[in-house]
Amino acid sequence: MKNTRVLIAPNAFKHSLNAMDVALAIQEGLQKSRLDCVCECFPVGDGGDGTGDLMIKKHNGSIVSAEVNDPFNRKIISSFGLVNDGETAIIEMANASGLHLVKPEELDPLRATSFGTGELVKLALDKGVRKIVLAIGGSATVDGGTGILRALGIRFLDAAGQELTAPESLTELASIDVSGLDQRILACEVSILCDVDNTLVGDHGSAAVFGPQKGATPDGVKKLDTSLRKFADVALAQTGIDMTLIKHGGAAGGVSAGLYTFFNANLVNGIDFFLDFTGFTEAVAKADVVITGEGSIDEQTLHGKGPFGVAFQAKRKNLPVIGLAGKIPLEQNEKLNQYFDVLLAIGNGPTDITTALKYTEENLIRTAWQVGNLLAN
Amino acid sequence: MKNTRVLIAPNAFKHSLNAMDVALAIQEGLQKSRLDCVCECFPVGDGGDGTGDLMIKKHNGSIVSAEVNDPFNRKIISSFGLVNDGETAIIEMANASGLHLVKPEELDPLRATSFGTGELVKLALDKGVRKIVLAIGGSATVDGGTGILRALGIRFLDAAGQELTAPESLTELASIDVSGLDQRILACEVSILCDVDNTLVGDHGSAAVFGPQKGATPDGVKKLDTSLRKFADVALAQTGIDMTLIKHGGAAGGVSAGLYTFFNANLVNGIDFFLDFTGFTEAVAKADVVITGEGSIDEQTLHGKGPFGVAFQAKRKNLPVIGLAGKIPLEQNEKLNQYFDVLLAIGNGPTDITTALKYTEENLIRTAWQVGNLLAN
Repeated sequence: MKNTRVLIAPNAFKHSLNAMDVALAIQEGLQKSRLDCVCECFPVGDGGDGTGDLMIKKHNGSIVSAEVNDPFNRKIISSFGLVNDGETAIIEMANASGLHLVKPEELDPLRATSFGTGELVKLALDKGVRKIVLAIGGSATVDGGTGILRALGIRFLDAAGQELTAPESLTELASIDVSGLDQRILACEVSILCDVDNTLVGDHGSAAVFGPQKGATPDGVKKLDTSLRKFADVALAQTGIDMTLIKHGGAAGGVSAGLYTFFNANLVNGIDFFLDFTGFTEAVAKADVVITGEGSIDEQTLHGKGPFGVAFQAKRKNLPVIGLAGKIPLEQNEKLNQYFDVLLAIGNGPTDITTALKYTEENLIRTAWQVGNLLAN
Repeated sequence: MKNTRVLIAPNAFKHSLNAMDVALAIQEGLQKSRLDCVCECFPVGDGGDGTGDLMIKKHNGSIVSAEVNDPFNRKIISSFGLVNDGETAIIEMANASGLHLVKPEELDPLRATSFGTGELVKLALDKGVRKIVLAIGGSATVDGGTGILRALGIRFLDAAGQELTAPESLTELASIDVSGLDQRILACEVSILCDVDNTLVGDHGSAAVFGPQKGATPDGVKKLDTSLRKFADVALAQTGIDMTLIKHGGAAGGVSAGLYTFFNANLVNGIDFFLDFTGFTEAVAKADVVITGEGSIDEQTLHGKGPFGVAFQAKRKNLPVIGLAGKIPLEQNEKLNQYFDVLLAIGNGPTDITTALKYTEENLIRTAWQVGNLLAN
């Protein structure tokens, strides 16, 4: 093929490289290869940490900085983006309530709250936005979104009418006072980018699945699950909405369920929303081949992860799709085959995960180079 | 490309799959891929364990079985091959003196001898062969070939005229008695397939480099090096040949040096001899693309290893060469680039070496499949 047009649309490689750096590494490899090609870097995000930034950049948005509370009520400078002439705010939950703001030894989801993200939401309303897009990946919280709700005026009360703030205290929840809710949020179109299907509670709930990586002990996971169940019980009685049944409800420690129930938020598939919002279709229309990637690509990827969204759109145009990942299934997988014409692991030999993460960039450059050489034959 | 003719010419993947099984796995992957191809499996050997077998099979040779001594003088049934109407014997040293005949806890190169291989040589002479090809990979010995020489009638004597047999006892060597040498060996063209350049003694000698993997302790390595130096000193005085200067002389624990000096053996590059002996040029002439491989491919490969020999011949015909390996350099390597158009590691993600070795076949099938898909684009 002469002058092959390659669309490079990878996810971030978690714990290693952000999506743009992944795209640039792949581009570098291809440009060094024998393939006569023109590359377009189109890094993607499916709601994970960094997704908001990518959307803001793609729209040449402006950044609004502000002081808010981190997960443990310490003041930090955070920010969000405004796009579409200030009509839409893009808020990255990790910027105010993220794991990366907290030292490993400080992790404590029994106390961590999403209040700071709520402050950003409030600031966006002050700016007059009519739409809010919330990317919720990388949060340090399992509070059912109660922190965000509190920042917007909702109060969580025990039987004595005392306000509850810490997630672990929700076991005492008796009533939810929505009288003080900032009504502007209800006039706003709130979209939450979800990349997981997990529901709010239970064995596959947010506490059980994501609690441990946010620092919860097995006992802490049980307490959080009990707290979220109590939240759901009281919410059901007051709103008629059963938060435990909401698909994606467990995303970001239950933020999805909480904001769906009290803000009428749309829970959207992260990658589909992202691709639509960033005009991916037009990029696909100009491409001959699409390269995507993520730290790990396996059957889970087909449950709405970034590379699947990219491959799905590419396949609608009958384009060949190449997936690069740190880890792929040992044996060829029929389901993955339908979306990935080629799936390669980027490692250069047996190695531990720490070394593999350290050399993601080198491995991407080299592997993309080889792919280019193969495509050039 | 329609009906791409793929020549699959890998080395064995050491400790994992023999060369034929590697070739078959690659073929399986390609046949399952979208590439419209015709494959020829042409497994190769560069002198390593299994090289002899491949040559015998390629020539439809016959097998001669016989009882000989293993490295520790225990009787075993071994064999060698006869090809070219019985004119040429192909002897695999590992079949009589190999590591695989010895339990790990039995390894002891201070005592292990190549005598059994010498017995096979003698049997070949009894069959009337005029040429002997010796593949010396995988031996358990560092005896300078003295075992083979003894089996053919040479005696190693101390100052008191007592015969020495164990490698460690060569420190007492005073004279070498060649009066009893089976003269038929001198009328025979002996070729030794070498895959390493190492010389007999010193820091890069056979004891230092290969002793440890054959079970030598650091102290044992020193003893063996001293023994081989003594052997070289006495041999130099009697023959005028300085065994310490012979390139490849350290191969197989010094068998190369010993047989070069006392049998006028030709020390040949293993893969070049193999490819010539098996008619590889004709196979290359019919191919559109060549795939080779080995457990590890790096700059060392260019020092005469199997995949280099294959790539060298393919490049003379301007064919694209694809290398598959368990381990490759992290970054693209200019020198390797000249011979390997594409170099891919076959692993599916970060993993330990034991797991990687266990799944070589699955990894080869999957990776060859992806390569086929890329070539088909």
